Amino acid sequence: MIDAAPRPAASGATTLDSHALPGPRVVLGVDAPLRLDGGAELGPFTVAYQSYGRLNAERSNAILVCHALTGDQYVVGPHPVTSKPGWWEAVVGPGKVLDTRRYFVLCANVLGGCMGTTGPREIDPRTGRRFDLGFPVITVRDMVRAQAMLLDHLGIDSLFCVIGGSMGAMQVLEWAASFPDLVFSAVPIAGSARHSAQNIAFHEVGRQAIIADPDWCGGSYADQGRRPERGLAVARMAAHITYLSEIALHRKFGRQLQDRERLSYGFEADFQVESYLRFQGASFVERFDANSYLYITRAMDYFDLARDVGGPLALAFQGTKTRFCVISFSSDWLFPTAESRDVVRALNAAAANVSFVEVQSDKGHDAFLLEEPEFHATLAGFLAGAAEHRGLARA
Amino acid sequence: MIDAAPRPAASGATTLDSHALPGPRVVLGVDAPLRLDGGAELGPFTVAYQSYGRLNAERSNAILVCHALTGDQYVVGPHPVTSKPGWWEAVVGPGKVLDTRRYFVLCANVLGGCMGTTGPREIDPRTGRRFDLGFPVITVRDMVRAQAMLLDHLGIDSLFCVIGGSMGAMQVLEWAASFPDLVFSAVPIAGSARHSAQNIAFHEVGRQAIIADPDWCGGSYADQGRRPERGLAVARMAAHITYLSEIALHRKFGRQLQDRERLSYGFEADFQVESYLRFQGASFVERFDANSYLYITRAMDYFDLARDVGGPLALAFQGTKTRFCVISFSSDWLFPTAESRDVVRALNAAAANVSFVEVQSDKGHDAFLLEEPEFHATLAGFLAGAAEHRGLARA
Repeated sequence: MIDAAPRPAASGATTLDSHALPGPRVVLGVDAPLRLDGGAELGPFTVAYQSYGRLNAERSNAILVCHALTGDQYVVGPHPVTSKPGWWEAVVGPGKVLDTRRYFVLCANVLGGCMGTTGPREIDPRTGRRFDLGFPVITVRDMVRAQAMLLDHLGIDSLFCVIGGSMGAMQVLEWAASFPDLVFSAVPIAGSARHSAQNIAFHEVGRQAIIADPDWCGGSYADQGRRPERGLAVARMAAHITYLSEIALHRKFGRQLQDRERLSYGFEADFQVESYLRFQGASFVERFDANSYLYITRAMDYFDLARDVGGPLALAFQGTKTRFCVISFSSDWLFPTAESRDVVRALNAAAANVSFVEVQSDKGHDAFLLEEPEFHATLAGFLAGAAEHRGLARA
Repeated sequence: MIDAAPRPAASGATTLDSHALPGPRVVLGVDAPLRLDGGAELGPFTVAYQSYGRLNAERSNAILVCHALTGDQYVVGPHPVTSKPGWWEAVVGPGKVLDTRRYFVLCANVLGGCMGTTGPREIDPRTGRRFDLGFPVITVRDMVRAQAMLLDHLGIDSLFCVIGGSMGAMQVLEWAASFPDLVFSAVPIAGSARHSAQNIAFHEVGRQAIIADPDWCGGSYADQGRRPERGLAVARMAAHITYLSEIALHRKFGRQLQDRERLSYGFEADFQVESYLRFQGASFVERFDANSYLYITRAMDYFDLARDVGGPLALAFQGTKTRFCVISFSSDWLFPTAESRDVVRALNAAAANVSFVEVQSDKGHDAFLLEEPEFHATLAGFLAGAAEHRGLARA
């Protein structure tokens, strides 16, 4: 029911050396542009990606990892900008749940991102000038179409698994809905089939914080040598609170004071939680682009699979043969378990093969990034069964 | 265990005509300043208040209403700045739960506020210049001490009831702890005996949004003819989300579009919830002072009754004769029921007379401001019993 994006001729794609960032990039949409949900056409455009492990001879062991709002393709570190470990080291690597001795793990920076894939801070090849706010508003489906074009370029005809948390889970669901024949198994983690009013509200606060910063310059800060760091930091701080549970915040910080024995009776960071948030804001602006933050939050807000298919959510999965494993976390209040249950209900109504686990965790939404034995065991069990079904050799 | 503030001689207090805002103001702390928790002394200072109903001959029917972070003394409208109804019209008035035919209802703008009581935007009488960030950091206890000085000035020796929601509840608990003999009954609603890490975090985001606004000017915006409206609006937007439940937001707005039939694929307010939040931010800056927002959020963050008494919370209420009615709302995630339960547990440990009701409501923290029949019935029942015990005549 959802048209796949037009596929460019393989000859139209060129692998570029990355200048600023390590890893491969490909130029796609040269012969035929990507038609976006908003009506604009994008092309040629670049997709930057990373891969881990080896594609087997049957080309049947590829796992596509879809990253979250502020994630990127550097799943396993060190990160080229921050030098920190990758964002999913807990899950991806030799002997890990996504065992790179067995699977070919691929992750692409999303369309609209700022780590090499075309986004607002890149140069529009048609004008020779930076996109800035001239970049078209994109959707999660547009992101997925770009990834499908990348796979086509790489000669990967089907995915053993598509997996991701948060906005990654949105992409997973979109993959399963848009390209059901390409997806053998799908693992949407801590996600939703549509962004809630509360989540739209939090995103809007972040966007307004960025737009309110005079250094945003109507979006054209880069060419003016400025950066809306203060606005972006405030946006990150607000968002970061939503990624943690109240219990996690309390356990981590409580009302403990920062490097002092008594209250300062001033506006310095008296409490550790204040100091932590300020650090989160300050370190985020070093690695993320403010306009990308606007575009990607907008894509999440627009996400509503049922609306896209013009009917009940189950319509999006009609006739699917994909094996699903839906995972939520009990203390996640940003994407609460109820929203995963809605997805499961729709999959059941579509007679899909689906298992569902609400992992008991007090770590909040970010639990999918952390050491969570029950979560990892769930993933490992599901993948083992799917791999057997798929006939993949053991590591 | 907590010293009451020094009482000024009644002759030292002067009732002033209000210039900009209607209602009485008194100047307190003329002969002896108010010694603040932070160590500074404040005086003389002004307290602006409103009263509704009549003090009876025995002076035994006074109810002190304590307002929340962004509330003020205009409990019953119309508000002098916004022309809207007062913030507690649902509860206060003739024939209402706080029946002004029976009770003398008093509400004072808190210390640090911006509706006539001395706060950062007022002139420091000792320097003749605006306080701005020279205003001392204050605590909830300082607010309560200033209110006690007002009551002394008004010749009210005891309160039939002290009542308030959110930060108002903090003041209620502080009143009961600091001035137990003055408080016949106390109703802390949707409150806590200490501000949680998550709440401190949300406040810190708001403060950083204000401080990041170049129009804040290091706090001295007023004399420069500027106002950090954008930062204050972002702070309000973030806070406003926390005042509502997810269900309330969903019911109010869901993913409904604002004045359009389809997505704009732009950054205009596509969704009603965005438009609503922008309106909340924009209208807030018309009536509230940014520096007041900094000081009052700080006071809330500092609130920790158990720390003040240096022991378990029950110590704060040792030997109390006050009758307590603790009220929480089931969908309030800013001040969840668990925090009210902690208060009740401490009151029980102090052998206090306490009743506790968790009102089933899906309206979130703001439920205390709204039409909530179960909440109003709870309040009415408690006050009727207390009034009988106190020997107050019926209306």
